[in-house]
Amino acid sequence: MQENILSLSYGKVTSQTLLFSEKLLLQSGKYIENYELVIETYGKLNYNKTNAILICHALNASHHVAGFYTDDLKNIGWWDNMVGPNKPIDTNKFFVIGINNLGSCFGSTGPKSINSLSGKEYGANFPFLTVEDWVNAQKKVLDYLQIEKLAAIIGGSLGGMQALSWSLQYPDKLDNCIIIASTSKLSAQNIAFNEVARQAILTDPKYHLGNYYEYNTIPEHGLKLARMLGHITYLSNEDMASKFGRELKFDQYQYSFEAEFEIESYLRHQAKKFSQYFDANTYLLITKALDYFDPAKKYGQGDLNQGLAGVMCKFLIISFTTDWRFPSSCSIEIVKSLIHNKKSVSYANINTPHGHDAFLLENIHYHKIMANYINHIFKEVK
Amino acid sequence: MQENILSLSYGKVTSQTLLFSEKLLLQSGKYIENYELVIETYGKLNYNKTNAILICHALNASHHVAGFYTDDLKNIGWWDNMVGPNKPIDTNKFFVIGINNLGSCFGSTGPKSINSLSGKEYGANFPFLTVEDWVNAQKKVLDYLQIEKLAAIIGGSLGGMQALSWSLQYPDKLDNCIIIASTSKLSAQNIAFNEVARQAILTDPKYHLGNYYEYNTIPEHGLKLARMLGHITYLSNEDMASKFGRELKFDQYQYSFEAEFEIESYLRHQAKKFSQYFDANTYLLITKALDYFDPAKKYGQGDLNQGLAGVMCKFLIISFTTDWRFPSSCSIEIVKSLIHNKKSVSYANINTPHGHDAFLLENIHYHKIMANYINHIFKEVK
Repeated sequence: MQENILSLSYGKVTSQTLLFSEKLLLQSGKYIENYELVIETYGKLNYNKTNAILICHALNASHHVAGFYTDDLKNIGWWDNMVGPNKPIDTNKFFVIGINNLGSCFGSTGPKSINSLSGKEYGANFPFLTVEDWVNAQKKVLDYLQIEKLAAIIGGSLGGMQALSWSLQYPDKLDNCIIIASTSKLSAQNIAFNEVARQAILTDPKYHLGNYYEYNTIPEHGLKLARMLGHITYLSNEDMASKFGRELKFDQYQYSFEAEFEIESYLRHQAKKFSQYFDANTYLLITKALDYFDPAKKYGQGDLNQGLAGVMCKFLIISFTTDWRFPSSCSIEIVKSLIHNKKSVSYANINTPHGHDAFLLENIHYHKIMANYINHIFKEVK
Repeated sequence: MQENILSLSYGKVTSQTLLFSEKLLLQSGKYIENYELVIETYGKLNYNKTNAILICHALNASHHVAGFYTDDLKNIGWWDNMVGPNKPIDTNKFFVIGINNLGSCFGSTGPKSINSLSGKEYGANFPFLTVEDWVNAQKKVLDYLQIEKLAAIIGGSLGGMQALSWSLQYPDKLDNCIIIASTSKLSAQNIAFNEVARQAILTDPKYHLGNYYEYNTIPEHGLKLARMLGHITYLSNEDMASKFGRELKFDQYQYSFEAEFEIESYLRHQAKKFSQYFDANTYLLITKALDYFDPAKKYGQGDLNQGLAGVMCKFLIISFTTDWRFPSSCSIEIVKSLIHNKKSVSYANINTPHGHDAFLLENIHYHKIMANYINHIFKEVK
């Protein structure tokens, strides 16, 4: 089984670490210097450097988009079902780039990295980041790779926000923008869930004001709560009902606070796994970046029509019917503003029970739409 | 303004504490003895004792349904807009009873009460409770009041589960059952949210395995997180968007973890208030009772048609269009099962933006439907 998955996968990959020594000015007015970004690439860059696709990752993912590592066969890229030879994002045709976001915890410089100025972890001193900052950092990688213009930028969820922001920050640097299960801004409810997750971490006594590395501990309870809560919002009500329903671990009620419904066990297990590999400070930073994103903010009453007036590329927008984290209405709002601005936009609302998580899963309609659109892009690559 | 509210209110009320010295056997197999229940009544019991209505309260409410206390004018009952003279539940016609649930923290015996056997607070030793246990305890109050049969039992949310359970546990002891914004069982998503809330409390170092009273502290952070999360599920996405949207407290982003969106301030404020009056052990117990409730459980595949076959009273079921905690589909499931069993049932789905909280708020359609149905009950009172 494992072998089968691997043979269908992109195959063996290695990541590279790029060091940037110049200062990167951030939206907050602060800056970061001597930062590293980890990247992974798939396929070959053509002679004219016109076949590059940038994939932007979501909250807990990384540069490791597809394939596996020779020393860690089970660590398969998070979008291996979408990216690879003859897959919708076809690495026989395109040069695909994954970049671990600045501030993340999978190799790129983040709160748990050593700050060269102080000689110890950044911790709470790591500057706040925005989606725009991530895009600016990604642009540095493309400059390094000497890629003038991308055939496409593709992202789901938070990655979709980065793709949208690219189309505004560097409108002439991409031909196509594919935004999946995303939104142009968080709702009050989205911000509220993020705030509960943050408070869980911030009020964990082991958070130590963000400098828990020095205490050789982690705010495990807070991080677990944040993950459990996040996980609920990634799944649809229907999906949870059909996967777990009211199934019990034992025949009878236990009258205890141990996990007795299957859904409780599942969430605890997911939370534990997450707390073992994800950094709490990164979680805090990413939720704030999510909250801040709102390209329409500077226009009267947050007018998205004005907000998107400057884009130049073509768009494919995809949403999922049971996604209640970023409901279809969020995608439709982007589509309408693009139409208002007479931009080229295709839109699909995929029928699925799998909620927000659907953007990561195989679905014949979703994958066909992606494959068709991306094939069409290839015809225009010179 | 304050005076206006008071003049429209039921008026001055006092509560009474009833002591029950016999053992009450609980669903868990444990029992409780020498327990107190606090009650409040409104209106007058008629000669035949046939005009009594029991109101069952939800998670954070109490016996204090209507009116105010002379020494605490601002402490107005939680359903004062529904219960009073000439109000939908008309205290000129009915004798209305509010009972603080066993295990609660507003006077009835609960985890923070002194256990007469040990001489100290029950704490973690307070037995687990179920909706059925609450109903059995309420029945003791009615026996004390020598009320043989209730004209109606009415409850919203968790109170609606108690009303439904009454119709099954004591089918010949009520003529009418009004179930508002409720469900016959929690979904996996509902249980998941409860589990996050419980883990927030249980993993707070100040929880001290439930015996925090001895340490003269409370698991404040955990309780606040639980309340913030609960609060999100009480409001609809639409309601939150129109009340708070992305409003900021300051003109510009602060790049800090202080509250900067209005929704963050609101949730923190609500959480703080709640943590100052509600007991964390009670919160844990109530969420477990919610999770356990499932009158169809003992029938094949949880068949609600079989589960409700034994009811004898008439029903009014009310849901609210934007309630996503207990969506209209949960009410419709009850309605369908009652129809399947050829029982008398009326149903209304009230159009409102206010989510689950709508059951506590004034709404002309909702209140008219309640008033009409309850007037109809009065015509049948002998």
